[in-house]
Amino acid sequence: MSERLIKTAVVGASGYSGQELLRLLLMHPQVELAAVTSRQEAGRSLAEVFPRFRGAPKMDALCFIEPDMDAIAATGAECAFLALPHGVAYEFAAGLLERGIRVIDLSADFRLNDPAVYAEFYGGDHPSPELMKEAVYGLPEFRAEEIRQARIVASPGCYPTSILLPLLPLLKSGLINPASITVSSMSGASGAGKKADASLLFAEINESVRAYGAPKHRHLSEIEQELSIAAEAVVRISFVPHLMPVTAGICTTIFCEPGEQGKGGDLSKLIAGAYDSAYGNAPFVRILGENKFPDTKHVTGTNHVDIGWVEDKRTGRLLLFSAEDNLGKGASSQALQSFNLMFGLPETTGLFNY
Amino acid sequence: MSERLIKTAVVGASGYSGQELLRLLLMHPQVELAAVTSRQEAGRSLAEVFPRFRGAPKMDALCFIEPDMDAIAATGAECAFLALPHGVAYEFAAGLLERGIRVIDLSADFRLNDPAVYAEFYGGDHPSPELMKEAVYGLPEFRAEEIRQARIVASPGCYPTSILLPLLPLLKSGLINPASITVSSMSGASGAGKKADASLLFAEINESVRAYGAPKHRHLSEIEQELSIAAEAVVRISFVPHLMPVTAGICTTIFCEPGEQGKGGDLSKLIAGAYDSAYGNAPFVRILGENKFPDTKHVTGTNHVDIGWVEDKRTGRLLLFSAEDNLGKGASSQALQSFNLMFGLPETTGLFNY
Amino acid sequence: MSERLIKTAVVGASGYSGQELLRLLLMHPQVELAAVTSRQEAGRSLAEVFPRFRGAPKMDALCFIEPDMDAIAATGAECAFLALPHGVAYEFAAGLLERGIRVIDLSADFRLNDPAVYAEFYGGDHPSPELMKEAVYGLPEFRAEEIRQARIVASPGCYPTSILLPLLPLLKSGLINPASITVSSMSGASGAGKKADASLLFAEINESVRAYGAPKHRHLSEIEQELSIAAEAVVRISFVPHLMPVTAGICTTIFCEPGEQGKGGDLSKLIAGAYDSAYGNAPFVRILGENKFPDTKHVTGTNHVDIGWVEDKRTGRLLLFSAEDNLGKGASSQALQSFNLMFGLPETTGLFNY
Amino acid sequence: MSERLIKTAVVGASGYSGQELLRLLLMHPQVELAAVTSRQEAGRSLAEVFPRFRGAPKMDALCFIEPDMDAIAATGAECAFLALPHGVAYEFAAGLLERGIRVIDLSADFRLNDPAVYAEFYGGDHPSPELMKEAVYGLPEFRAEEIRQARIVASPGCYPTSILLPLLPLLKSGLINPASITVSSMSGASGAGKKADASLLFAEINESVRAYGAPKHRHLSEIEQELSIAAEAVVRISFVPHLMPVTAGICTTIFCEPGEQGKGGDLSKLIAGAYDSAYGNAPFVRILGENKFPDTKHVTGTNHVDIGWVEDKRTGRLLLFSAEDNLGKGASSQALQSFNLMFGLPETTGLFNY
Repeated sequence: MSERLIKTAVVGASGYSGQELLRLLLMHPQVELAAVTSRQEAGRSLAEVFPRFRGAPKMDALCFIEPDMDAIAATGAECAFLALPHGVAYEFAAGLLERGIRVIDLSADFRLNDPAVYAEFYGGDHPSPELMKEAVYGLPEFRAEEIRQARIVASPGCYPTSILLPLLPLLKSGLINPASITVSSMSGASGAGKKADASLLFAEINESVRAYGAPKHRHLSEIEQELSIAAEAVVRISFVPHLMPVTAGICTTIFCEPGEQGKGGDLSKLIAGAYDSAYGNAPFVRILGENKFPDTKHVTGTNHVDIGWVEDKRTGRLLLFSAEDNLGKGASSQALQSFNLMFGLPETTGLFNY
Repeated sequence: MSERLIKTAVVGASGYSGQELLRLLLMHPQVELAAVTSRQEAGRSLAEVFPRFRGAPKMDALCFIEPDMDAIAATGAECAFLALPHGVAYEFAAGLLERGIRVIDLSADFRLNDPAVYAEFYGGDHPSPELMKEAVYGLPEFRAEEIRQARIVASPGCYPTSILLPLLPLLKSGLINPASITVSSMSGASGAGKKADASLLFAEINESVRAYGAPKHRHLSEIEQELSIAAEAVVRISFVPHLMPVTAGICTTIFCEPGEQGKGGDLSKLIAGAYDSAYGNAPFVRILGENKFPDTKHVTGTNHVDIGWVEDKRTGRLLLFSAEDNLGKGASSQALQSFNLMFGLPETTGLFNY
Repeated sequence: MSERLIKTAVVGASGYSGQELLRLLLMHPQVELAAVTSRQEAGRSLAEVFPRFRGAPKMDALCFIEPDMDAIAATGAECAFLALPHGVAYEFAAGLLERGIRVIDLSADFRLNDPAVYAEFYGGDHPSPELMKEAVYGLPEFRAEEIRQARIVASPGCYPTSILLPLLPLLKSGLINPASITVSSMSGASGAGKKADASLLFAEINESVRAYGAPKHRHLSEIEQELSIAAEAVVRISFVPHLMPVTAGICTTIFCEPGEQGKGGDLSKLIAGAYDSAYGNAPFVRILGENKFPDTKHVTGTNHVDIGWVEDKRTGRLLLFSAEDNLGKGASSQALQSFNLMFGLPETTGLFNY
Repeated sequence: MSERLIKTAVVGASGYSGQELLRLLLMHPQVELAAVTSRQEAGRSLAEVFPRFRGAPKMDALCFIEPDMDAIAATGAECAFLALPHGVAYEFAAGLLERGIRVIDLSADFRLNDPAVYAEFYGGDHPSPELMKEAVYGLPEFRAEEIRQARIVASPGCYPTSILLPLLPLLKSGLINPASITVSSMSGASGAGKKADASLLFAEINESVRAYGAPKHRHLSEIEQELSIAAEAVVRISFVPHLMPVTAGICTTIFCEPGEQGKGGDLSKLIAGAYDSAYGNAPFVRILGENKFPDTKHVTGTNHVDIGWVEDKRTGRLLLFSAEDNLGKGASSQALQSFNLMFGLPETTGLFNY
């Protein structure tokens, strides 16, 4: 492990995933924050915008700058995280890559492979179909090698991460029937972003539980893309997200039926085996085991995802459960995991946090 | 409507559903609280145990007494609500009925028809199989006539109410496939009761979201019993309850597939029709319509259940949504709705609350 | 008590105090909602804007209209509640009074007597100094007679109500030293209003406790005005409001020293006596007594204010405690209490709520 | 800085401050957890009791043991943290010191200097008055040198830390009048401990704000002891703690009057100067400045305390504000700060956390 500092930029850092990313970069032993941009906060110090970071060694002198690509390049940044809204990131991605800066994009702009699916779920043609092709979908547990080599990583969405990690190993091994999947996810309010919207006020979300966005939440597109790759067939699922009165955390419950490979044998043992093969060496996926229910409170602030399952023998179904921090493994710390891979660092650098 | 006061007892009133029941009885224009019992609070005034009720006209002079059946009968009570733990209610139910007092039981002791199912889900033989048979499962939207005549009503559980009300009309009319049902419910912490248990502390439940109790939560027994009656066939479902950091409220999301009667036609129109037939005159069931998501915050403190649905055309599934107050329509106000029926009052008496 | 219905308008009903007011009017047996205005919601039904009210008898057919004074007058309304922002209410108050409609203003526009104090705390000259003089500061426990006769009532603010009710009887009887008062109040997030402001998002207020607005919160002006009247001397206090992660409720803690009349005797007995004289017949002020701490959870949704006190004999100070619902006794239900007085109804009509 | 690992024991680690301490020790680069005891969890692994720590390198193999002093000594532990209830710690402190193990006690057993005050506030005679004398009150910002040499450190309570840090520099410099201090503190629910008590249930604390414990909370004894030392005179204050619906965090608001040294000059400048002298080199005290309000959400999970102040010129009072994590700077991370001093490490080792 080289002890050098890697100059890093964060573009669009004033939202919740930007803030969590800055928090992690601040504590990362091999990162030098070279530039932090925000159109709305330009000129203000990081400590002023984020009082939590006041007094931090790397943070005190740093100010937000305008999101100018030449200015970012002039800092000598080798890598840029984009924590921008969907539809805004692609322009920066293209421009920064041209300037020789590797890009980790936290938006949805480069997560899809198929321009038609992009148009269906996000509206309008994708402006950079070639970059869309080039970008690696950044699930480090499944694409570590490609991430290491990537110029541009499209870091997965929060719901997708919580759904894909329990499902991918089981689909790959044929243990579940891809046509049978229904998903109920519960997310904290930070997932809706830091925007001035009266429906996101404390007095609206507190003491409230509700579904929303079904049947065609935008994240469904990348979820089904990755499930289909794993199943080697087109997979369609039913997905209902819910908004919970917690700041951070996603809890996902998946109902499915055994596939051909899951019938006849000891299903639970087969599942344990599939998870062990997939995640035995994955430092951030914790397999809790059968009849264990993950709790978001045990993963918030970390890059962990916890997974458990239950065989519902009365109905023949299999129930899968996961918990993650939507801003952590569902966004910022997962992006940092990709960063570690891209720059030849141990995957856990700066992510050893409990 | 007679203006007479009906002498009423509440047995075991120190928990959350007991408290909510007392709150409603206090505001009910035709109820006189004749006796309120609690082993642990005997001798204390209601205002002392429940400071919220301090100063209420009916409440000030009233004290908790020991749960003695003769003492209750001596007050002239015509009706007793049992807000006792499961396994304790049956003894009081039998004794009070013998003394000529009609019983509305909020526990699970009399909700099942089949002693074998009782033994499977609650353990041990039921001590009063005849009373179990006699007791009416108190869903007023489906059994109003039987409730009116009943000596003993078994008021439904919180999860069951939130699941049965959206499903029963659709099963009865064959619009959904009974074998396809999976349910994800999210409940507030009051559902776990007012017991000194470290896992229910504020610091444990706040900022936490988790599944529990799958695959065989006790409420599943009454849910499947009622679904089976409606479908005229044995129905088995997968049910996952979740614990949410709200005090009150249950949000339920149901995934299912269309049944024979639901194929071919305009499914959403058929659903709207089935709901209109079932609930057109039901004052407490509010059909929000297609693509509407109920929110627990709009029903807490009331006897309402809100219902919406979504057709997931990409997968061919139907998604149903409901919201209720677990202590309201899921417990105490629903029990009071049965009371109104039993005593010939308008169903909404004392329940006109927003 | 006349059984007639009083035609009533609510002007500016889309915020939190407007919503709470509508909720109470909806259940009030002698109110007919004649007009409900909202610039931003005009044309939408009340049930659509406030799903909680869906299905309510008085509510279903009612739509928001533009805040046009002639249109309001044309409905035959006898009374209008103004739930408008500060600085907007005075124009409607003047215009509606001219049209013969009595006004209950929930804003701060008419709470002060002294135009100079208004200018100091709210900025700019008051446009209607005569109306300002005429308006009655609507604390029913102290001004019932004037409220009965009033054309215009300025209903008190949330913090002021929680501070004045424990202090006024003690100041009037000389039991405390007016120069010694310091106040720490804790308010729920609904007090900040339903405005699209990123600092009020769930993810900002949840798991956060902080002071704000000291030393010169706008409410200080009316607090000191009323304290000065009671003390018959200029009173200045130190007041620190805090924002709490609850939807509703204000908890106030007051530190003060005994006054001349409070020295020598049994202070606690004197206090109990002063409260009994002031509130012995006040249906909404509950005196919990010495060494009792009010809890906001026992008053939310009601018009109650709970009051307790502690003698801190080690320091010679007196500690006073109160709890109210900032939207209830601190705003909407208190305004309705004035309405009852103005229209010759029992003070508790429509406010019997636990 | 030596790179050696210091063998460390935690006695009584199953509560909230024990858990936070373990979390920090786990990430501390120079600590080896030699023994972790808990009467109630003995035999279970740390990962099982605290699922959050699952997979942590130092944690996986470690099991809770019975709190046996010889067993602890046999591990070679050089230091023991006591996270035991008050009244239980002194016995372990004495026994472990005898066995040559330095002790950092998080309970109140050794915080007081005066046996009479101990008897008054905690009841009964202190069993080890000599150790009580020897123990250093562990506020590192004021007693770093004594802590470095100490065999036994009594780590301060949560309320005391939040009150002493803003007050001590001002009292020492005569800027405030010691007789004028009143304090309102607001604490999260974890401060009440992890005990099975129905009054601490989620459904009791959520949507609730209330004072408690005044006028003579146990923490008052150590607060006044330290204030008196700073003022070189007996100081008595009025202190009201409040319980808030947050998991962690204390927000403290202090009202006081200027002292002799604070009159005449520019008070705010004098205060800034006093804080700069006291905390200019203190890595964990962040002086936000005049008219700034600390927010608990910016310090939770860290060892920071944030301090701001306001001059209330209308009343001549000074208002001080602080925010800390009650489990962090108010308990476990502060204890670890003392540990760093005791073992010659940089004060910030293992505490660089945002």
